[in-house]
Amino acid sequence: MSNIKITLPDGTIREYPKGTTSIQIAQSISEGLMRNVLAAKVNGEIWDANRPIENDANVQLLTWKDTEGKNTFWHSSAHLLAEAIESIYPKTKFGIGPAIETGFYYDIELPEGKMLSQDDFIEIEKKMLELARTKSEYIRKSVSKNDAISYFTEKGDNYKLELLEGLEDGKITFYTQGNFTDLCRGPHIPNTGFIKAVKIMNLAGAYWRGDVTRKQLTRLYAVTFPQDKELKEYLVLLEEAKKRDHRKLGKELELFTFSEKVGAGLPLWLPKGTLLRERLEQFLRKAQVKAGYLPVITPHIGSKKLYITSGHWEKYGKDSFQPIHTPEEGEEFMLKPMNCPHHCEIYASKPRSYKELPLRLAEFGTVYRYEQSGELHGLTRVRGFTQDDAHIFCRPDQVKDEFGKVIDLVLLVFKSLGFEDYTAQISLRDPENKTKYFGEDEDWEKAESAIVEIAKEKGLRTVTELGESAFYGPKLDFMVKDALGRKWQLGTVQLDYQLPDRFKLEYVGSDNKQHRPVMIHRAPFGSLERFIAVLTEHCAGNFPLWLAPDQIAVLPVSEKYHEYAKSIHTILEEADIRGFLDERDEKIQRKIRDAEVKKIPFMLIVGEKEEESNTISVREHGQGDKGASSLEDFIKMFQEKIKIH
Amino acid sequence: MSNIKITLPDGTIREYPKGTTSIQIAQSISEGLMRNVLAAKVNGEIWDANRPIENDANVQLLTWKDTEGKNTFWHSSAHLLAEAIESIYPKTKFGIGPAIETGFYYDIELPEGKMLSQDDFIEIEKKMLELARTKSEYIRKSVSKNDAISYFTEKGDNYKLELLEGLEDGKITFYTQGNFTDLCRGPHIPNTGFIKAVKIMNLAGAYWRGDVTRKQLTRLYAVTFPQDKELKEYLVLLEEAKKRDHRKLGKELELFTFSEKVGAGLPLWLPKGTLLRERLEQFLRKAQVKAGYLPVITPHIGSKKLYITSGHWEKYGKDSFQPIHTPEEGEEFMLKPMNCPHHCEIYASKPRSYKELPLRLAEFGTVYRYEQSGELHGLTRVRGFTQDDAHIFCRPDQVKDEFGKVIDLVLLVFKSLGFEDYTAQISLRDPENKTKYFGEDEDWEKAESAIVEIAKEKGLRTVTELGESAFYGPKLDFMVKDALGRKWQLGTVQLDYQLPDRFKLEYVGSDNKQHRPVMIHRAPFGSLERFIAVLTEHCAGNFPLWLAPDQIAVLPVSEKYHEYAKSIHTILEEADIRGFLDERDEKIQRKIRDAEVKKIPFMLIVGEKEEESNTISVREHGQGDKGASSLEDFIKMFQEKIKIH
Repeated sequence: MSNIKITLPDGTIREYPKGTTSIQIAQSISEGLMRNVLAAKVNGEIWDANRPIENDANVQLLTWKDTEGKNTFWHSSAHLLAEAIESIYPKTKFGIGPAIETGFYYDIELPEGKMLSQDDFIEIEKKMLELARTKSEYIRKSVSKNDAISYFTEKGDNYKLELLEGLEDGKITFYTQGNFTDLCRGPHIPNTGFIKAVKIMNLAGAYWRGDVTRKQLTRLYAVTFPQDKELKEYLVLLEEAKKRDHRKLGKELELFTFSEKVGAGLPLWLPKGTLLRERLEQFLRKAQVKAGYLPVITPHIGSKKLYITSGHWEKYGKDSFQPIHTPEEGEEFMLKPMNCPHHCEIYASKPRSYKELPLRLAEFGTVYRYEQSGELHGLTRVRGFTQDDAHIFCRPDQVKDEFGKVIDLVLLVFKSLGFEDYTAQISLRDPENKTKYFGEDEDWEKAESAIVEIAKEKGLRTVTELGESAFYGPKLDFMVKDALGRKWQLGTVQLDYQLPDRFKLEYVGSDNKQHRPVMIHRAPFGSLERFIAVLTEHCAGNFPLWLAPDQIAVLPVSEKYHEYAKSIHTILEEADIRGFLDERDEKIQRKIRDAEVKKIPFMLIVGEKEEESNTISVREHGQGDKGASSLEDFIKMFQEKIKIH
Repeated sequence: MSNIKITLPDGTIREYPKGTTSIQIAQSISEGLMRNVLAAKVNGEIWDANRPIENDANVQLLTWKDTEGKNTFWHSSAHLLAEAIESIYPKTKFGIGPAIETGFYYDIELPEGKMLSQDDFIEIEKKMLELARTKSEYIRKSVSKNDAISYFTEKGDNYKLELLEGLEDGKITFYTQGNFTDLCRGPHIPNTGFIKAVKIMNLAGAYWRGDVTRKQLTRLYAVTFPQDKELKEYLVLLEEAKKRDHRKLGKELELFTFSEKVGAGLPLWLPKGTLLRERLEQFLRKAQVKAGYLPVITPHIGSKKLYITSGHWEKYGKDSFQPIHTPEEGEEFMLKPMNCPHHCEIYASKPRSYKELPLRLAEFGTVYRYEQSGELHGLTRVRGFTQDDAHIFCRPDQVKDEFGKVIDLVLLVFKSLGFEDYTAQISLRDPENKTKYFGEDEDWEKAESAIVEIAKEKGLRTVTELGESAFYGPKLDFMVKDALGRKWQLGTVQLDYQLPDRFKLEYVGSDNKQHRPVMIHRAPFGSLERFIAVLTEHCAGNFPLWLAPDQIAVLPVSEKYHEYAKSIHTILEEADIRGFLDERDEKIQRKIRDAEVKKIPFMLIVGEKEEESNTISVREHGQGDKGASSLEDFIKMFQEKIKIH
């Protein structure tokens, strides 16, 4: 028997007998690794870990830490769920059961007359764990289309038969674990024993194949883990996430609202939300002035011609908000989906010299993009949002420097808003397929190495993805981890060779000849809507002091002290400290509780003692009493705290 | 012969013989008045001053100072122009010759082969003055349709024949002065002798009846005056207006631009214009915070449902930018033409108590309104503009107080921007026709007297117009006179009973019952685009110091002093004084000239002497050298100058 060569991700090459499985490869490295291997990426394709490898191959072993490993685990768990259902409710018919972002689901049709409820979840979970403990292997088997049809005809599962109709004979596989066999392409984890913790989350109705004219099936959502501890942590996280949900906090803190008459996905910013948003804008505006940006304002519509020039019409026109016609003149305008074409027109509004570059045009530009109403979600998925957009028009030799400055700005934003855990993804060309990219080879090489270098110089933690760049240029995306460990893509920096070409942008070089500038798109926040949503969840509504809608609340103990309280409030207002005076006819305990619910950073309580000694009693949100203070000292302490902004 | 009673505008009643003319009435008052009477308003209708009055009537004598008097004068001048043309170019055919805002025109078809040019203007002007000096009376004569047709058939004037087609027999009049007879409803001035100064301004092509398929006539624009001095002043003003044209200055000062690809009437704000605009916004924003306004932000589109509710769809839908469709879901959105419906939805987003009122929601809201492309003009007539909008939701008993506060804000704006000459127009219901207005009679009466009272209390110079209110409420419009004496409508305050009703807005009163709030729409600037256009022309681009895009320019005499100049510039920047450092390799005279052209308020020149003595040489725009100063003193002086903002 001949050997095959296996290349591992770190580049080491090992020899194994032909027909070795990924599990065996893992075992040859360590027993611990073997116990954790869920599947393997073999020459870029995901395989069962127990599938024999017959030829030389690149192999990446997949564990729970890899997205593909997790997906395989959850897909296998869906089969386990089906097995449990079938064992409890024989004659159940099965639709599809994929892995999703947070677990998996299975669409099922229960036997006539049977309805599931939340009360049944425990029994199903118990059965799943019982079956898991049998450590049944997931066994892959190729079947002919005829045999497959016979099997499901006999079983009486018309959904699987319908799925079979679309499959090609010779490419059909079954997977069996324990007593359950499913039509499935795979891959799967080695055996059910890997599944140690199970939780059915929810049930919902779901039309077969998403078609409202077809039967409504029962969709069971569930999640599983390789360790019980992880499930517990997940449930705690989920509970915490619910509390921090920006839609809930947005309502409680009166940041924003939606209106059916205005339209789905179109937020209405309430006063407190508006002030918060304006402060974020003001913060970035100041930083941008320092960094040499020039502000511009452009309209929210543009002639269709603009988007034909930019290429957006051809690429996205059909799936966008449709053109706006004028009543008489037959003109067509589009809601702007991005600000760059407008900024290109500003660049083109007069001749430019190399001395003017880099020209950094910044706009808090509200753009509109069509999303299906079912896809909308709070402020994270909307139809109108405001980008903290800027376009840097520069010479090719300025790219590295400009990228570096943008990185500084992004990091300033993260630091100021308390995001400490972030990585940067460098997306480069697919080196195997250079022809599909726009722009000169030489420029790409320079730009890519510039980005890689500058990211290194700035000490960023990076991952590099080949083939993930846009076709018009390489990019750098910032992913932050929030307080719950969830990852969000926020800021982005993109290089663009294409738009300057489409808009025929030029500058006169030092050689007195016309040259084409390079364009950098960048948005440190990404979008204000999304950023504020993420920030709200990250800090659970306890915004950094400088950003908090109300920074203080002055709470008089009774009406007798309103006069004194008012004088305190006025002095604070004059010191640019925001907040309110609670003159309601309520007990002080109630006023404190209400201020705590509103997450007001500082409560200033004033009564007889305070008035007499000309002081205030300071209470900090979530930290309780801080004792008496002169107003002067409080203001000094306060200003110290918000100093960096 | 019996007498008739003539009631004059001041209420006095005089008796005259039946058949007295307005000229005779004027003569009975004073000879001077007689010489100035151009026409008269008799029972609301404008009459020839020499037309006999047969019954009791209200009579207002019209002179050059009245818009209607001026229009009559110019319309008569059009006849004089026609007479002159006919005398110089016999066989000319005549279209129409109306008065317009700045004079009058006549559309003519010259005899075959004859073309007019600017060179012919002097001859025509000379002929007009010659004919004017004959003091020919304008003689009115009723003619039958048949006689009228005969007259123009004989004359061979097919345009007048076409106009006759649309006229009813028995209502046709001719006017004759000297040798020229025109088909005309009148009225006219007594005789041509009133016309003392004449200027042909321009010629252009104009299709007969605005129909591009008809013949193109020659349109002659002209202007006339009752005194030569007035023409001279007018021409100076015109020259000055050209220099101050905001479209010209906007380009020179790089405030804004337009792009054919973005679309007509959609301004792109360049960096300097954006900064200026942002400062105006910031100024008002601060004033509004003090005045208790709460900022909100709403999207630039809204579902069609919103505008069906508000009534805008029914009223303006057909003439607006047409609805935006979504690709799949068949939804319809409109570009928002105003912010009020969105603000109503914010009001309605939670239950309101009388304690919360007045609720003042403010937004710098960009709205889009369709205008025909031919009607667009710089920033004064655009398709997208930003209102400094706010809506005050208040109880009926708060209307007067709120109106007063809005007046204060408008006056603060005028004062801060150097508009010293303004009047306020109070527009009330037509008392004869109360049924056509929306809302309770009692509320109207209260609101109207509240507005009249508060305007008086605030010492406003007002004119009151009955029947000029909107159907949904009374209003107060501010008209400013600019440095050239031109009037512009800027700020507006409007009461609205209708929208709260259409949106079913409510608040719980102190009686614990539901009540409907009143709504006040207000915009002190009106629109930022229009305001900046008017301001630019008013101050000829020499913006108030606090608003100037660049406040200073640091001008080093040569490269040797760049280092010192840079240190000066840095200190100024830190003191929030805006400007630039001119490091070009140019002579100092050139740098000064360029800074003067850019209307930079202060030029700070630094050379050997200044560096040695650690000073700057200050030059003020348009005022020349101000001598040496320490930087400290300059900053102090500067900050003093901008103190109120």
